[in-house]
Amino acid sequence: MIEEGAVKAGSLLEGLPAAPLAKEITDILADAREVRIERIVSTGQVTPEGQWYDQETDEWVLVVAGAARLRIEGEEADRELTEGDWMLLPAHCRHRVTWTRAEPPTIWLAVRF
Amino acid sequence: MIEEGAVKAGSLLEGLPAAPLAKEITDILADAREVRIERIVSTGQVTPEGQWYDQETDEWVLVVAGAARLRIEGEEADRELTEGDWMLLPAHCRHRVTWTRAEPPTIWLAVRF
Repeated sequence: MIEEGAVKAGSLLEGLPAAPLAKEITDILADAREVRIERIVSTGQVTPEGQWYDQETDEWVLVVAGAARLRIEGEEADRELTEGDWMLLPAHCRHRVTWTRAEPPTIWLAVRF
Repeated sequence: MIEEGAVKAGSLLEGLPAAPLAKEITDILADAREVRIERIVSTGQVTPEGQWYDQETDEWVLVVAGAARLRIEGEEADRELTEGDWMLLPAHCRHRVTWTRAEPPTIWLAVRF
């Protein structure tokens, strides 16, 4: 639990890079014992060839702006994600990001729990 | 933790009311032991006069679409929230919603933890 009275606030749409960067930017917006909320800004990054995310925690992810493609291991095709689309990826659900829109950047919200 | 392999997906921008409704709509998108993720659709609703939300859990809230005004107890003025704006409201931080855009509806994402 957060310190009582400590309201925090911000905008997911501010502080974006003016041009594509080599790496994604991750901002931690909230971090409690069981939950972490992050904004991730992608400017074309993908998961390196042959690699999969295999995470210890459940992840709920939302495309706030932009677009992306994501492959779940065992599925035949990429899933297309656009603004407003969310996915709940259980822990150890192996997946890779195969494309992200670079300009303007793709803004993700990730809740790990 | 969610059942392994049970990927869920959806869009925050679909399934919206065509016209303002009497009550807000709340969809639970994920519900684990320590975390609940909800979409809330407001079509002009506000917290009734003289009432405050006083919640047992921390709440991270995002305006996905639309606009709202929110008053924190003890603050002099409402906070204005527009698309992309988020707030982290600690448990027992008393607050009220004083205005929400009705048309098109205001879409909130709430993470309670």
